[in-house]
Amino acid sequence: MLNYYLGIDMGGTQIKIAVVDDKAKILEETVLDTDASAKPITIIKNIVEKVNTLKYYTKVKFIGVGIAGDIDSVKGIVRFSPNLPKWKNVYLKKELEKLTKRKVFIDNDANTSAIGAFWLDLKGKATNMVCVALGTGVGGGIIINKKLYRGASGTAGEIGHITVESNGNKCNCGNNGCIETYIGVKHLVNSAQELMKKHKSDIILKLADNDKNKITPKILSQACAKNDFVAKQVWKQAGEKLGILLTTILNFINPDHIVICGGISKADKLFFETAYKEINKRAFKTAAKSCKIVISKYTNKLGVAGSAMLVKN
Amino acid sequence: MLNYYLGIDMGGTQIKIAVVDDKAKILEETVLDTDASAKPITIIKNIVEKVNTLKYYTKVKFIGVGIAGDIDSVKGIVRFSPNLPKWKNVYLKKELEKLTKRKVFIDNDANTSAIGAFWLDLKGKATNMVCVALGTGVGGGIIINKKLYRGASGTAGEIGHITVESNGNKCNCGNNGCIETYIGVKHLVNSAQELMKKHKSDIILKLADNDKNKITPKILSQACAKNDFVAKQVWKQAGEKLGILLTTILNFINPDHIVICGGISKADKLFFETAYKEINKRAFKTAAKSCKIVISKYTNKLGVAGSAMLVKN
Repeated sequence: MLNYYLGIDMGGTQIKIAVVDDKAKILEETVLDTDASAKPITIIKNIVEKVNTLKYYTKVKFIGVGIAGDIDSVKGIVRFSPNLPKWKNVYLKKELEKLTKRKVFIDNDANTSAIGAFWLDLKGKATNMVCVALGTGVGGGIIINKKLYRGASGTAGEIGHITVESNGNKCNCGNNGCIETYIGVKHLVNSAQELMKKHKSDIILKLADNDKNKITPKILSQACAKNDFVAKQVWKQAGEKLGILLTTILNFINPDHIVICGGISKADKLFFETAYKEINKRAFKTAAKSCKIVISKYTNKLGVAGSAMLVKN
Repeated sequence: MLNYYLGIDMGGTQIKIAVVDDKAKILEETVLDTDASAKPITIIKNIVEKVNTLKYYTKVKFIGVGIAGDIDSVKGIVRFSPNLPKWKNVYLKKELEKLTKRKVFIDNDANTSAIGAFWLDLKGKATNMVCVALGTGVGGGIIINKKLYRGASGTAGEIGHITVESNGNKCNCGNNGCIETYIGVKHLVNSAQELMKKHKSDIILKLADNDKNKITPKILSQACAKNDFVAKQVWKQAGEKLGILLTTILNFINPDHIVICGGISKADKLFFETAYKEINKRAFKTAAKSCKIVISKYTNKLGVAGSAMLVKN
């Protein structure tokens, strides 16, 4: 018998909702705009209303929710969410269970993305996997023995805060030299802006409407494809740092798969080619050889599909 | 009914042998000098002879062996061991099983030490643990869900080769900036020798018989206890780097316990105090708070006790 699972991915601008099957294949999906100014209970009620319109919903027994921030997955509490400033100590699990009469699981979006990558990109055929989410920040999730690994306090997988330079860039977390400060969106853009003080780049300027403040990673990828010097430098430097992060993951955890997802996973191939070169130079040969590195094909679906599968984790 | 397990820890100078109980408590132990020039089969036969003299041996059903190097724990082959240059592709498991009529398990010494630390230092009361072995090199072993975690190719836990400086010291592994090149024995000694070019240290020189080449980490700890400037600098610098390594472990794996063992775990307290200060500055608060960091009290017993427990892993 086929089982049906409902996933809810609470983003800062959109709430994605989907019903998936046993293998996280999306059978039905919908979205809801996020009204960050609304009361949490109002948003929860809106979600339930939307969910009730899904034709597969009557067959769903379990619901999973992924949300950015500090999440107590055991008690089902959203302690704090950066995208939803009004959400402080919200008993999301309890409220949703009351309204849906179904069992609800919640977790942070890095973990749900890892579960999503395990099912959608790897079809559940990995044993030990690390998911590397490259976006504004750098997040991560760990699958060990086919299950999500949460660690002692549910914060396992904070790979964005692995130090790659002892006395490097100051990070918001309080540390210095976190990988996030070298390959996060802000740094990529800053890095281009700095380089452009010395090196002219008509290509980037044109793509950014002649406004350096409008530079985005997407523009840097487009410029890189056009052989722009600055853009190439930015992706090369970032690729080196990504390679160091991946080497640490390989040498430490020796996973059989690494899945790279998030907005920056769509960057120019120079970024990844540089990273792979660094791995060849730096990582243990056996660890590198036994790991398949995959760029996710489902970045925008990982959260909602992985949330739906939380019940299995 | 009490079970009895035999552990064999194959070191470069000594082979430790012990019978332990269900909780890795050592009931009986003995040692054998390692004759690295002898043929592997001769050493194996000598071990079996020695084992036969143990009074609890008749009750033993399972044997475990820990050995440094590249070990195929699935097939039971010692591919290569740095301490025993004659050991190349030795079918240790097969040979020992033939001679002892018992089931034999083998693994590398970093993994057996981790199992030993889990039982002896933590009494089996940890869930997710990382063992950090500080000595000539920096090794590690990972326990996840109370079991040894080996990864995709059995090389998980190579924490000595986590990069802490992108363009740092050249490491034997081929990488640059591995933590091992900052807190391994060689670097500690080099570091003192370098500092002594600028700063006189009568205390260190006296302890080293006026010969800079005789400086050891032990001498640096003794000098540190006597408030020697150079020794204090060495341990402070190394402590900072150790703190960065521990921060990466905390942020990435979020373990409930870290056990630090190996010769350098007996270093002056300034080394550890500095590391803990770095953790306070750098690590995620929840990850740091939920992890107990323990200096092993059983460094010399971990390998033999952990080897004996391999059957449970």
